[in-house]
This record gives sequence, C-alpha cells and structure tokens, in this order.
Amino acid sequence: MYLSDIPLDDAWRSFIEALEREGLWRPLEAESIAVDRGLGRVTAEPIWARRSVPHYHASAMDGYALRGRQTDRASERTPIDLQVGDEAAYVDTGDALPGWADAVVPVENVESIPSSQGNAIRLRTPVAPWSHVRPLGEDLVATELVVPSGHRLRPADLGALAAAGYTQIPVWRRPRVAIIPTGTELVQPDQAAGPGHIPEFNTITLAAQVEAWGGEPRRFAIVPDDLDRIRAAVTSAAGYDLVLLNAGSSAGSEDYTSRVVGSLGEVLVHGIAVRPGHPVVIGMIDPPAQDRPGQRTPIIGVPGYPVSAALTGEILVEPLLRRWTGLPPTQPETIEALLTRKVHSSAGDLEMLRVTVGRVGERVVAAPLSRGAGVISSLVRADGLVFIPPGIQGLEAGERVTVRLYRPASEIERTLVTLGSHDLTLDLMAQFLSRRGVRLASGNLGSQGGLVALARGEAHFSGCHLLDPETGEFNVRYVQRYLPQVPTTLVALVGREQGLITAPGNPLHLEGLDQLAGGRAVFVNRQRGSGTRILLDYHLERLGLAGASVEGYDREEYTHLGVAAAVASGRADVGLGIRAAAVALDLGFIPLFHERYDLAIPNEHYQSERLRPLIDLLSDDEFRSAVSALAGYDVAPMGTVIWSSG
Amino acid sequence: MYLSDIPLDDAWRSFIEALEREGLWRPLEAESIAVDRGLGRVTAEPIWARRSVPHYHASAMDGYALRGRQTDRASERTPIDLQVGDEAAYVDTGDALPGWADAVVPVENVESIPSSQGNAIRLRTPVAPWSHVRPLGEDLVATELVVPSGHRLRPADLGALAAAGYTQIPVWRRPRVAIIPTGTELVQPDQAAGPGHIPEFNTITLAAQVEAWGGEPRRFAIVPDDLDRIRAAVTSAAGYDLVLLNAGSSAGSEDYTSRVVGSLGEVLVHGIAVRPGHPVVIGMIDPPAQDRPGQRTPIIGVPGYPVSAALTGEILVEPLLRRWTGLPPTQPETIEALLTRKVHSSAGDLEMLRVTVGRVGERVVAAPLSRGAGVISSLVRADGLVFIPPGIQGLEAGERVTVRLYRPASEIERTLVTLGSHDLTLDLMAQFLSRRGVRLASGNLGSQGGLVALARGEAHFSGCHLLDPETGEFNVRYVQRYLPQVPTTLVALVGREQGLITAPGNPLHLEGLDQLAGGRAVFVNRQRGSGTRILLDYHLERLGLAGASVEGYDREEYTHLGVAAAVASGRADVGLGIRAAAVALDLGFIPLFHERYDLAIPNEHYQSERLRPLIDLLSDDEFRSAVSALAGYDVAPMGTVIWSSG
Repeated sequence: MYLSDIPLDDAWRSFIEALEREGLWRPLEAESIAVDRGLGRVTAEPIWARRSVPHYHASAMDGYALRGRQTDRASERTPIDLQVGDEAAYVDTGDALPGWADAVVPVENVESIPSSQGNAIRLRTPVAPWSHVRPLGEDLVATELVVPSGHRLRPADLGALAAAGYTQIPVWRRPRVAIIPTGTELVQPDQAAGPGHIPEFNTITLAAQVEAWGGEPRRFAIVPDDLDRIRAAVTSAAGYDLVLLNAGSSAGSEDYTSRVVGSLGEVLVHGIAVRPGHPVVIGMIDPPAQDRPGQRTPIIGVPGYPVSAALTGEILVEPLLRRWTGLPPTQPETIEALLTRKVHSSAGDLEMLRVTVGRVGERVVAAPLSRGAGVISSLVRADGLVFIPPGIQGLEAGERVTVRLYRPASEIERTLVTLGSHDLTLDLMAQFLSRRGVRLASGNLGSQGGLVALARGEAHFSGCHLLDPETGEFNVRYVQRYLPQVPTTLVALVGREQGLITAPGNPLHLEGLDQLAGGRAVFVNRQRGSGTRILLDYHLERLGLAGASVEGYDREEYTHLGVAAAVASGRADVGLGIRAAAVALDLGFIPLFHERYDLAIPNEHYQSERLRPLIDLLSDDEFRSAVSALAGYDVAPMGTVIWSSG
Repeated sequence: MYLSDIPLDDAWRSFIEALEREGLWRPLEAESIAVDRGLGRVTAEPIWARRSVPHYHASAMDGYALRGRQTDRASERTPIDLQVGDEAAYVDTGDALPGWADAVVPVENVESIPSSQGNAIRLRTPVAPWSHVRPLGEDLVATELVVPSGHRLRPADLGALAAAGYTQIPVWRRPRVAIIPTGTELVQPDQAAGPGHIPEFNTITLAAQVEAWGGEPRRFAIVPDDLDRIRAAVTSAAGYDLVLLNAGSSAGSEDYTSRVVGSLGEVLVHGIAVRPGHPVVIGMIDPPAQDRPGQRTPIIGVPGYPVSAALTGEILVEPLLRRWTGLPPTQPETIEALLTRKVHSSAGDLEMLRVTVGRVGERVVAAPLSRGAGVISSLVRADGLVFIPPGIQGLEAGERVTVRLYRPASEIERTLVTLGSHDLTLDLMAQFLSRRGVRLASGNLGSQGGLVALARGEAHFSGCHLLDPETGEFNVRYVQRYLPQVPTTLVALVGREQGLITAPGNPLHLEGLDQLAGGRAVFVNRQRGSGTRILLDYHLERLGLAGASVEGYDREEYTHLGVAAAVASGRADVGLGIRAAAVALDLGFIPLFHERYDLAIPNEHYQSERLRPLIDLLSDDEFRSAVSALAGYDVAPMGTVIWSSG
C-alpha cells in the first residue's frame, strides 16, 4: 500500500488536478455576512459604493452657511452684513448646507450684530464658494470601487463599506475542516498516561492552524486503530470541506489511512519526499450522496509525528485554505542568513530545517535546531524554516541560506543569541528578558562550542564554566585561547554545585567519581566540549581512571536536564551535573565540586545598547531571587566583571 | 473647555501616570483557558513542562526491542538470534520499550526464524544501545520552559503545551471595550439617511480595531447630543476596562465629551497636536462603586471624523490594548521611500500622512493620498503612514521618508503603480489584476501629471488621452515631449465618448460648449493638466470663448465621477466628462467627441515580468466584456501598440 515518495510539486499537481475535476480548486461559495463581523474575511466580489460619502454637501466647520458670491467685496473697510435667515444659516460640522448656500464661514470669523429683521453676521473677508464644505462624494462617489474582490478586510475597510451603504457584505465562506485523530495508543491530553499511552495533541496544533488560516476546525474524538471504526469516522466527516486524518504515531495506522481512503474513494498520493513528513496520504473520498451529490471531498492523511503533522499543515493545508478563502498563495517574510553549522540532508528529499535566527553585529545567523520529527519544542523555538531542495546533499557551515520566517523580522532584531553551555538559569533569563521586550534564543553547544561560536561572530554571548587544571581558575585562559582576536569581557553569572545525579535516595550508595569504574553503576555522560565533560575528564585523570572503564561513558547528553532525565528513567544510574537539574526531577544529588558559570561577551556587544537589558538584569533583585530559588546556585558573584581583554 | 493641543508624547505621559495610579499600566488579570482556545492569546506566566515528552522510552520504528549489547558481535557470518519473548519484543512506533530493552531494530532489518521456544529473530549487524529509540525527555524534560510569559501563542505552541501536560493555560484576559457613538445627526448605517443625517460607521471601524488588537468590543446604541443621556451611557459603561466615546461629527458634542468626563471623573487631556485627530479627550472616570471599588476607568473621547477616529485608535487604543494583553509595543514594518510630491504641514502638529507605496524599478515611491479627516476611503487605499514630526513645515518632492506599512512589504512588491488620467476602467482593471495576485495602486494626476510622474520614475504606467490640436492624433506628441529620454510604448486601452454631463433629462436643453458662456448654466471643470481640460480649452478657443466667460470654470474636480457628482448634487448644471460617469449616476449625457485613452508604459516596464499580468489582461475576453458593459466605451483598439520609441 505504501506507494512511493514523490516530489512535493508532483503531489500538488495530482491534488490540484483532482480538485479541479470536482470544481474545488477555487474559492468556496460566497456568503453574505454583517459588515461588523467582517474583520479578516475576504471579499467574494468587488464592492462598489451604493451611495456617495458624504451623500450631501456637509459643513466642515461650525459656522454660517452662505452664498460665497455675496461676500466677494468684503474687506476690513467695507464689511458685508448677511441676514441670518435667508442669507446666512447657522450650521454645525456635518450639517447639510441649505439648498441656496455654497460655502461656510467658521463661527470664529464672523461678528454677530443685531439687525432690523433679527440677527445678522458681519464679514470682513470674502468667503470663496465651496470653502469649508465637504461636497457630496468627497470621500466616495456612488458606483466607485470601495474594495476589490479577494481583499482581506481590515477595520477601516469595514467602516468605508458601512459608509458606502453596506450592512451585509459578500465574502467567501470559511472552509469546514474535520480533524480525526486515530490510534489505539492515544489518550486525551488531560488523562494520566502510562508508558505507551500518548497524549493526543496533534489535533490541537492542526485545529489552531486551520483557525489561523481562516477555516473552521472541528476536532473529532479519538478513533482506535480499527479499519471499520476509522472508515465510519471518515464517512461521517465526508460532508466537511476537507478531512484531516491523523495517523497517531503508529506506522500501522498509516496503512489504515490509505486503505480507508482507497475504499471510500481514491488514493492520489501516498508518500511525499519531504522531511519531516514522508508518509502523507492525499485522496478524494465520495461523500454521502445526500450531502453534495457527485462532489468528492479531499482528504489528507497527516503523519503522526508532531513536527511532521504541523509541517504537513503548512505545505498542504494552508495553500488549500488560502485558495478556498480567495487569498493568493502565502508569501512568508524571508531573511538571508548564514548557517552556523554543517547540515547533512538526504538528496532525495525536500528538507525543512528548523532554525533560530538572530542578528549578531552585521551578520544574520541561522542556527539549526533538532531535526527530530517528534520534537515539537523545536517548532516552538524555531524562528523559521530553511528549505533544502532535493538533489542537495547538505549545507556547509557559513553557507548563505534563505529563512522563511515564523516571526516578523522586527522580532528577530530584538533577539539576543546565546550559544554555549547549558544552564537552567538561561530559561529564567529568557523569561525576564521577554518582559523587557527582548527575546533570548539559546542553543546548547557546550562551553567550548560557545566560545568557538563567539569567535565566528555567531552569538552575542556565551555561558561557560571551564576549569583550568593548572590554575584552578575558571574560563579566563579559555577565552584567551579561543578569542585571541576578539576583545571580550567575562562577567560572572552564578556559582553552582556540580555533583553526582542519582536515582532518588541514591540506592547504589554512590559517593564519588572513583566508584564509576568497574560496572557498579551505568553512567550517562555529557558531550565533548562541555564544561561538565572537561570537569569529569580532569577528575577521572587525577583518579587514574580511563573513560573506557566507565560503563555508559560513550552515551552523551547535551544538557543537565537530559542527564537527569536519563537517570530518572532508569536509562542510567548516575551522571555528573548541577544540583538544580537533580532537584527539578526529584533525584538524588551528591555534591562534589563548586564552579563558576560566567558569561563571555565580546566588548562590541558588551558596550552596545542591544545588550543593555541583559546587563541590567544582572543587578535586578527580582532576577537574583528567582535564580536563588533554584537549588544549588550562589548569586553572590552575579554581575562581577571577572576579566576583560578590552 | 477646549484645553489646548499638547504633543502626543505629553498626552501619553499624563495618561500613563493616571493609569499607573490605578494600577492599570500593566497587563490586566490572568485567566485560565482551555489550551485548544489559546490561539493568539498571550501567556500570563512562564509555562514549564509538567511532564517529559515523551514520558517514557518510545520506539521510533516498527521493529523489535532488544538489548543492544547482546548484538555487539553480530555480522554477516556470525548472525545472532534473539528469542522473541525475553530477548526481543515486537514494538510499533510509539510503543514503550520493555524495561529490559535499550534499543530497537527496524522490522525490515531482521529475519524471522522459527526456534525451539517459538519464534526468534536473526540479526546480521550490531544494534547500538539507544538506536531507534526516542528516550524519555527527548522533546521536553519535565520542568523545562515551554514558553515564556508574554508569548503570543501559535499553533505549534498549543500542541507543545498539551504535550507537556496542560489542558488549561494562564493567559492575560481580553480587555472589554465599550464604544459609544453620540450625535443627534447619526443614524444606523442601514437606515435611509437624508441630508444632514450621517450613517454611524465609526464604531464599526473602532470595534474591528479592538478585535484585531485582542480586545472584546461592545458597540453601544447611538446616543443623541444630550448631556444627561451621554452621561447616563458613559456611567453604564464604567464597568468596562476602557470606554471610547465617539463624538459624532459635531464639534458641539466634543464639548459634551469633556463635560461628561469632567463630571464623572477627571479630564487629563483635551486636544492633542496630531493631524488628523486634534480634538481628542483623555480622562479617567469613577466606576460605580460595586464594580471595582476605588479603581477608575480610562475613557478616550475619539474625534468624529472617520480618519481621525481610526488614527486615534492606532495611536492611543492599540498601545493600551497591547500593554493590557502583555505584548510589547507594536513595531510596524517600515520601508524607506521617496515622496512623489511636496507636502506642507503645520509646524505645530504631528502629521500622519496617508500614502500609497510601490516599487518602480529600483525606487520605492510613496504617493500622498487625500489628507481630509473625513475621507475614510483614503485609509482603505493607504499602504501606510508617514509621520511628519512637529517642527517641520513640510516635505519636499523626492525627499526620503519612512513609511509605517499597513501591508506586508511582500504585497508592496506585488503592486503596480499607475499615476495619470482617471478612467472608470481602472477600477475594473484593479479588480481583474487582483485575481491574478497583483495589486493596482492608482492616483489621479491627470494625463499630463501622469507623464511627468513617468519621467520621474514614479509609476509603472500612465493612462492618458491628450489631443494634439495640430494633428488630431492622441498622446504620441505628448509622450515625445514629456518623455524624451525614456523609451516608451503607447498601448491603446479604450476609445471613449466625451460630452456634456447634465442633470437627468437635460432640463436646460444644453447642446454644445457654445452654450456655456453667459451664465445660462453653472459649469464644473476638471483640473489643469487633465486630458479633459485640454480638450475643453481647445474647443473653447476654437469657439472664441474665454474661460472667464464660463461660470464655474474655476471650480475644479479631479475625476469624471467628481464632475458627475457635482452635477448630481446640483452644485453645477453641467460638466465635460465621459459617458460612463454620467450613466453611473443616472445623469443626462450629450455626446460631443470621440477620443482614445492609451496607456503609456516605459519599455523597461513594458518588457518586464512584473507587467505581464497587465499586458495579458488587455487580451482577456472577460476583461473586454466587462469594460464593454460600461457605457460609452469602445474596446476594439484595446491592446494595440500605437507607437513605440524603443
């Protein structure tokens, strides 16, 4: 049943042909809605003014309406008096001019004088015909175009349409989209889920996408992996404009999708050469005869991995919904950026690479994020996608790429980029900076990786905790070595405790690194270049222990929490990490070392306005207390300048 | 009561101080909402993962879970067999690994073999520990930050939050905004309105703005200009978070606003030095004691002119709503552009100039639109605003300005700019081009003005109908004269009839231009430089008539519909214009001349991909029929190349 991976363009070609056969590759029907409900809707017709605006000659001031010609000879010496009544009439702004009047003089420009027949006004300068008058049609003349069809309505458009005589307006109706989650392993997200039970959240992402793209989503109940029940659910959804059948995480259910679609209509595509996203099904199903006789309904089998599901939404559902709602294809804002590291990609696929983006000095840099199809948090962190077309084996570090942005470029301009050692305070820092209107994009490269990135101009600052075995000092020698050409300042962030993270209660009674050898406990390591790895290797060497003698030494995690999670899940017995990570997951902790975690900041940035919010944060009492509240941190050194090469 | 015009910054300073006194210059309260209702809402707290994702070691493939170490020595020659049961267990993608397993081998990489105790699998390559496994916490580790506070939620964020264990999430609640229209002259937009009655549409614009900015608008019924009734309406709205009191068009009602605010609380600002927008009132009113004891409610008196009202929304309401919903100040996308013509501005005011923007060749040009505070259609047509700060008397033509864009820059890139003669087919052209994904921005400068604009590189093409009295030919000599350095092609658009536009039935029995002199009828003219004006002056000269002998000769309109509207409203008896304009407003028409209306297109654009949709349109049968359906047009010449200097 797994047909084959075809290029995205070919898949779209088949899909469009099938939609065209059903008359569905065009906006859906028009509907008439109240103008005050029209925000964001798209006009289905050009709308021409029904009446002129204003629809009469209106006074533009509070004053007197008069005949301009009667004032032609008015001057300081020869004022002209007009009788209030048939020569001058008081009007407020917006009032209609009497039929005989053709101009207005503002009230502050006349003298009121008594006259024989009542009141009169005296003028000492002429009033040109049509002055201070908003003539009929000044804004819109009846029959003029107010907005074209295919126009997405904004607040002022709605005001103008109401002004032009519309209370109802024709717009394309919203597509109704059925979203069906399938999978025996799925549970509602609020249900307690044991191992093997997966909270169902893809339909939340997909429904929000449909809503954002102008559709009306309807989330169906979870259907277990049962051919008949899936078929029944799809059949019940065939009256919708579009059906999204989400496969759960099981590859088995993918087969159900194509079998169900095949049995209810036609499978057009099974497998698209995009990554993440491969196992996509596109088809057309026959609706129940009573709904829309003769017209088939498009159905998309959306892959189960959450990133694949979300990106399938972007490449298949969004273009279709835009077509249906009368909008042109989306044109995402793009930015040119330099890729921070080499990326391999499969030559047969269109790869959609998630990246964070920031401007560091004059360079815009794009740092690749996790490429796992299951890592939804990578989409949360992503600032955009780099499309690597098929036929390309990968991209080099430093290569220029085009990023389709998820955020406005203005937000990218407000982003501080930090690459380096992972510390839990960075999350707090992100939180506090966001209050100050600054976004922090962080990547875990380890302490040494961060300094290398700084030297290449890829980050604004780096966190590091690198012990110099010869001096016992932290960081200074490393900054000197990695950034010899870059004037840099080292500012202390925190002191912190490193130690053994163990299962709760330390059941193996571990006390020190000397017990790691010999298979007594399975260790989980940090990656090469991280400060913690350097700390470990230094102490193992002092103890005369080889890495190979430590079981699990080769298994690397990229963060303290990753180490803690490995221990919490039983995948390892022990790891070296910070107390806060152990406490976060309720694990045991045996403190071994104190260390200092500093921020290395090139002076170019250290002295810039851009970094001001970060520098301010280091003396913010609220931030200090929040960090203190995490276990194992000493905030006393925070903000101290340790060293500067400037 | 009209205090004084103060700078916008000073007004904001007073407003913020007053809001801070009430504890209202910060986000409103948080509320808990269902995660699947969270699209576009803003987090009120940082949200940390409640559970790890995945929350167990999950198979990443369909295959067999096993102990990696048991396969270390597997090779082609020395395969390893594992007993299905306690050495290997079948798992689907997403299934939990058995506690004893640490790796998965994909089902396609094993041979199933029968064994003594049931089934076994045979492997010919080693399987490294943790391969094809999504370890616990691969995506998110419990306690990790999912999204910071102040984050506007997107579809993938909602999926990630559900994955991390949230069904309810804390967001800032939506501000509730009362919008009260006042004015005895106002009627509901669906009511037939006679002269002096103004359809009430400002609250439609304001409500849509509030909705777009994350608030919940509530439109109140129209309140007549009566102090007690306005006070009663405002009092009934005092429980809202914000009250917008819209003054109608009458300056008298402005006084009501400040009197009502003063009597119910405090007027902070009366008059802001911005244009359009001057008579703004800002105040704080005391709410009914039972609602929010001690806390006052901000109120904004919004001016009555529709453009003033909409821009007051942008400069006062949007910043407040963003603050209340936890968002940083908006940063509109901007573009640098060259102003097409000189603009005077009052040195005391911040002027917000509406402009259309387009890229013509390498230059981005901004063309000022109507500056009337009552011309809401100018906001519909505007691509953005140029802020002219106080202290500046105006801007020169060709000056570089920063435009705050209303549309994404990508849409500006899809815009064709035409400046020149006005013709009703341009609206149809805009409509047909918009279907092809192209936006047409047009400005009426008259035929000659358009050619001047082309010479300055400010437009892609110009419509013109300029009679050469010596040859009787149209346009060619003028293009040669105005664009000597610019290789240009003239393409015919339409032939059309020019004649006298009269009141219905031609009550004055006008038959020709010779009857215009001597005061028999009041004429309405077109502006200097327009083709129609040149046509008029040419024929008046032939008749030996001076302009001064024609009553109304000095009163100029900028469009054919403007002339027709002047006649329809009785402001004039007759004008010279095209048949379509007369027919649009059901007026009389006495045909006098035939003329050709051409498009002048610099070859640089004529041959560009950018103009392809326009060129294609000229041979589009549907477009030709639509133009034919307008009265007085001959589409036979459409698309014919009349002349080319290239």
